[in-house]
Amino acid sequence: MSATAVTEVPVRAGGGLRDYAVRVGTGLIDTVGEVARAVAPSARRWVVIADDTVGALYGDRVCASFGGADAPLLTFPAGEHNKTRARWEALTDAMVARGLGRDSGVVALGGGVTGDLAGFVAATYLRGVPVVQVPTSIVAMVDSAVGGKTGVDTPAGKNLVGAFHPPAAVIVDPTVIRTLPRRQRAEGLAEAVKHGAIADADYGRGIAHRAEALLSGEVEAIRRMVLRSIEVKASVVSRDERESGLREILNFGHTLGHALEAASGFGLTHGEAVAIGMVLEAQLGELVGHTRQGSAERLVEILQAVELPVRRPPELDPEVVEGFLGADKKVRAGQWRMVFLAELGRVHDAGGRWAHAVERGPVRTVLESS
Amino acid sequence: MSATAVTEVPVRAGGGLRDYAVRVGTGLIDTVGEVARAVAPSARRWVVIADDTVGALYGDRVCASFGGADAPLLTFPAGEHNKTRARWEALTDAMVARGLGRDSGVVALGGGVTGDLAGFVAATYLRGVPVVQVPTSIVAMVDSAVGGKTGVDTPAGKNLVGAFHPPAAVIVDPTVIRTLPRRQRAEGLAEAVKHGAIADADYGRGIAHRAEALLSGEVEAIRRMVLRSIEVKASVVSRDERESGLREILNFGHTLGHALEAASGFGLTHGEAVAIGMVLEAQLGELVGHTRQGSAERLVEILQAVELPVRRPPELDPEVVEGFLGADKKVRAGQWRMVFLAELGRVHDAGGRWAHAVERGPVRTVLESS
Repeated sequence: MSATAVTEVPVRAGGGLRDYAVRVGTGLIDTVGEVARAVAPSARRWVVIADDTVGALYGDRVCASFGGADAPLLTFPAGEHNKTRARWEALTDAMVARGLGRDSGVVALGGGVTGDLAGFVAATYLRGVPVVQVPTSIVAMVDSAVGGKTGVDTPAGKNLVGAFHPPAAVIVDPTVIRTLPRRQRAEGLAEAVKHGAIADADYGRGIAHRAEALLSGEVEAIRRMVLRSIEVKASVVSRDERESGLREILNFGHTLGHALEAASGFGLTHGEAVAIGMVLEAQLGELVGHTRQGSAERLVEILQAVELPVRRPPELDPEVVEGFLGADKKVRAGQWRMVFLAELGRVHDAGGRWAHAVERGPVRTVLESS
Repeated sequence: MSATAVTEVPVRAGGGLRDYAVRVGTGLIDTVGEVARAVAPSARRWVVIADDTVGALYGDRVCASFGGADAPLLTFPAGEHNKTRARWEALTDAMVARGLGRDSGVVALGGGVTGDLAGFVAATYLRGVPVVQVPTSIVAMVDSAVGGKTGVDTPAGKNLVGAFHPPAAVIVDPTVIRTLPRRQRAEGLAEAVKHGAIADADYGRGIAHRAEALLSGEVEAIRRMVLRSIEVKASVVSRDERESGLREILNFGHTLGHALEAASGFGLTHGEAVAIGMVLEAQLGELVGHTRQGSAERLVEILQAVELPVRRPPELDPEVVEGFLGADKKVRAGQWRMVFLAELGRVHDAGGRWAHAVERGPVRTVLESS
């Protein structure tokens, strides 16, 4: 398929790092090589990193987009449990074994795991080479591929090791969503619902209205949704690249979400855990008075329309979940901190402070009543 | 010992990152906690990372300088062969196990290995926490602690994995050099000789004149030498933080030096390998016409005065050494590139290009005739 209309969303990288653009358009998967060379001309040799599933689906096309130049595909086994320091090490060594120098670049082709893992490989390879993010899942398109966060998990928690390494470009082709299983499409919609919840209530409600088109992977519905979510995320990221302030609002649902995901041994997907996390954090916000009553219920309606879970699975013990809260990066000085909604479409803001301390009592109450 | 006069050398971090200062003065080892808190006020909990040798010598004093607050010492076994991803992983996990969040900071207390390793831990911990470099070897004081390079080795070569992570501060106390063995003092002088070779011929000759005072660890001689070297390095780094151009001149002696060091299985220390590398690269420069005749011989005289080797050890086969050149970061598009002297005190500059392609033939000639 040849590329049709392309929409570019600019992103400010911040911290003196180079700005970049997210390109959204059907058929763009076949332009990766051309775009990569244009945005990172110092990189003369490229590798494409993908998990084995995505590699089998799209690896050939992306490698071919480099026009016959040697752009090998490096794969690793699919799954969040492979987002580890050991895989990072193996991919790095595979690049070293090919004699790749500083004049090399990495294409991260895949979902959030690949983007984070391959991004961290690029961030640390010879102290940093360019990465082009080519997200192939909804969650990666609307969330993880934009913003420059890279990293891997450790046994103690998610993303505990990593680096800020903004991409040279992000290339989003909504047609690749058709090959995703329905459950993975639903999962990705959790981050889109989050963008609605923190920044645009109409957008959030619209996701519920177009639920079936989105869940079945209808390309135009996906394209519009992805574009709006990227606009929300790019706007937040551009105003605060290093998460010192505003960017924290993107963590809505993620403090409890990460703990639930880790407590489940990653039996819950990231999106499912964030969906439940958003509901619980909205309920918590209502309980402590930051959030308008009824907001959690409105979130529940949207999330259920896109077939996402909204309750803590009964087998996840509240005490175990709380144990994983302690390992979260968002803990400061031993104090739990979270972002709260003011209402659907807007976060609670105490004079430019977006993350707020919360006591253990209400957290336990909400976890137990869920 | 209480602190006496302190000299501050400012360093521009570049890339939008925060500038920092190198503080040089006798007795400063006891001010680390105070300085760390002042330069990184967001870090409320600190860890001190050192190898077991340096930890035993200075760990207590540095931890005590935090004035009774919990600033634990994390140690690892001494030696370049411990600058690995496995040690990085273990130190990271030790920090996670202590529940350290984003409001933490790292003191890197030790030589170049510790600075690189602990710096890389800080660079990647929760995507980056502040590091204060407290170099305790000459090579670390005059070279590795300034400039923001962090990283670890892989079996294929040195520093193949890492990050740019400028320190929040560098604290240099020349009195700690007294506890170094003479051979390690000599080793560190290799980088100081390099600063003379690339930027200040008088300084280079002065090192030879004051050789005995420097080798025996006389504090005032060390202090002056360290200060002048830091000035040279800070000047170069401040003009080019990301090694795209001028900073490459600091690699003089290092392309062949790294290959020799790796080929020796790290039997040669870094400084010894760089000493030989500088001589060979000066000879190579004379051979290909970039370097004034006799420059290599003048370098040899200075290096011999400070008891450093100037010839390839006969057991290191030239072909094996060349094999390690291929893995070096400074290779671009498969082409070997090196910085050459124009003469002692000045590098060869071809219109703002500092690293120059070199053919394999002359490299082999120089390696074989050494």
